[in-house]
Amino acid sequence: MKIHEIGEFGLIARLTSGMETGGGVVKGIGDDAAVLDSGEFLLLFTTDAVVEGVHFDRRYITVEDIGYKSMAVNISDIAAMGGKPTYAVVTVGLPDDFDVEDADAMYRGLRQVAANYGVVVVGGDITSAPVLIVNVALLGETAPDGVRYRSGAQPGDIICVTGSLGGSAGGLFLQGNEEFPCPEPLRDLLLKKHRRPEPRVAAGMVLGGLSGVHGLIDISDGLASDINHIALASGVGCHIYKAAVPVEPAAELVARRAGKDPVDWALYGGEDYELLFTVAPGAMGEISAALLACGADCRPVGRVLDGEGVWLVLAEGSLTALTGGYQHFSSAGGKDRGSRP
Amino acid sequence: MKIHEIGEFGLIARLTSGMETGGGVVKGIGDDAAVLDSGEFLLLFTTDAVVEGVHFDRRYITVEDIGYKSMAVNISDIAAMGGKPTYAVVTVGLPDDFDVEDADAMYRGLRQVAANYGVVVVGGDITSAPVLIVNVALLGETAPDGVRYRSGAQPGDIICVTGSLGGSAGGLFLQGNEEFPCPEPLRDLLLKKHRRPEPRVAAGMVLGGLSGVHGLIDISDGLASDINHIALASGVGCHIYKAAVPVEPAAELVARRAGKDPVDWALYGGEDYELLFTVAPGAMGEISAALLACGADCRPVGRVLDGEGVWLVLAEGSLTALTGGYQHFSSAGGKDRGSRP
Repeated sequence: MKIHEIGEFGLIARLTSGMETGGGVVKGIGDDAAVLDSGEFLLLFTTDAVVEGVHFDRRYITVEDIGYKSMAVNISDIAAMGGKPTYAVVTVGLPDDFDVEDADAMYRGLRQVAANYGVVVVGGDITSAPVLIVNVALLGETAPDGVRYRSGAQPGDIICVTGSLGGSAGGLFLQGNEEFPCPEPLRDLLLKKHRRPEPRVAAGMVLGGLSGVHGLIDISDGLASDINHIALASGVGCHIYKAAVPVEPAAELVARRAGKDPVDWALYGGEDYELLFTVAPGAMGEISAALLACGADCRPVGRVLDGEGVWLVLAEGSLTALTGGYQHFSSAGGKDRGSRP
Repeated sequence: MKIHEIGEFGLIARLTSGMETGGGVVKGIGDDAAVLDSGEFLLLFTTDAVVEGVHFDRRYITVEDIGYKSMAVNISDIAAMGGKPTYAVVTVGLPDDFDVEDADAMYRGLRQVAANYGVVVVGGDITSAPVLIVNVALLGETAPDGVRYRSGAQPGDIICVTGSLGGSAGGLFLQGNEEFPCPEPLRDLLLKKHRRPEPRVAAGMVLGGLSGVHGLIDISDGLASDINHIALASGVGCHIYKAAVPVEPAAELVARRAGKDPVDWALYGGEDYELLFTVAPGAMGEISAALLACGADCRPVGRVLDGEGVWLVLAEGSLTALTGGYQHFSSAGGKDRGSRP
């Protein structure tokens, strides 16, 4: 049987079934990061790779941005647990004819975002490879009661996101359509959203510190896909209100000009690295205020329900099933995109 | 400038120069694993990747063995610090037409060696890739005084290795020369040495617990290369006595039949994953006894000297400079091999 017949998520389920856990494992496979008991605090541990030709195309993105993004997406996984990122090891696979100056630039991007978020690169591996590959493994930490999981959502919760969505999809569109007419400031903003996402570490730490926050994930695959992850892990259903989905304004403008549905970009585009979380209704005021104080918005987009399934509530009140998002080995499901980590 | 002009070690030095460290970093880049302050104990953190066409050729090694070895080499890096391996995250890059059954087998090998050494796989990433890639990032721990470094060797120390060397090189030779006449038990033994090395975790933990042990590294690149790493990091010189280099007997037999120098296999072959360490002369008895008790030998092979440089002492007493071992991007130095992690 070929992998594309069962898809990425099917393969993960198959390979990790029956994976043994140890005494110190609070949470193993199945969330954005593993959670390990480490005495006074919880240790978080995650890894994510980017591969040339799969996640990026060097004709469209600089090696410096590739380095930046490879680290940023891992930092976002720590933010998605409510944690503070700390130490990283980095594996780089380089073609033999790669330029040393490009390797310098790639590391420069990677070190820049690491420094921005207080991450120290403490080790790594450099190897030959047929294409450029960057793998980051990242540690983080939280207080014992400061961690949040995909599985924490409770019926009645309000579903929220930080910031706006679809900006990365807009940047990806502009990257692939260089001649598309777009004012430079908007183009720059959207390309930056796609190439240099800013993981929501401060917001994640705030959310982990508030007991009214129940379920938490980052939006890497897309709101549609990631709310399904929460629903499945929590054993709940969800309604997302289409009219409430916060579309990045610049992306909305570009999408309309291009004849695309901007909400599709927000739902399915992915790579926005905002946080998606569920909140006890009585805690909404406290949480909104705390997020505003750390520079993040709190946008309610839906409700958690008893039962199962994720539904998009259209303006007129009708429901449509909300599925999708990217999977590797994609014939088993999901949408293909030109680039994603 | 192309990478092959400066070689793997030149590139590492360039990319990591000026890498900032943080408060909790006891040892960053430059040893087999990073060492991080974690309250009651030291946390060890390492990563290593294997790439198809660079480290292995699927015509010669099964995917199960690839999985095994990808984890084993990381476990050896923790052993090389005196530590106990604990938790791993695994990134797997798979070609789209990869068989699910092969993915199963690869994970089976990886999980088997993890279980053998008490390692729990707590997370990972699965992605499309042009060739098979396995990256492991592994944590370990030691007591605060139980860690040893490459940089600990002191003039006057006796240089020792656990076990015998050249077995992996013998297995690599047989793997590439299937028709070479060799009794099956020897062939099996050497192929296993190459494909399923047994990292010296128990021996490493014993060595970390004894104050007479000064410098420590694992033999991944080859005795010649790894003793140079110790000499350089410690600011010392070393003599290795050629007649004392413990060659794996089965490898010696095969090498002689093949018209090769068996000591070359032991010095330059690498991938034996034995430990190489330096010992205060007065502690040799205690250390030998402790290693024997955990199933490992203690073979003295040389002396640490004031000054610099590493020399092979030949039988008649003459000296020849001992350099070499494998580097990726190899035109800048080192020997090419058919396979190595």
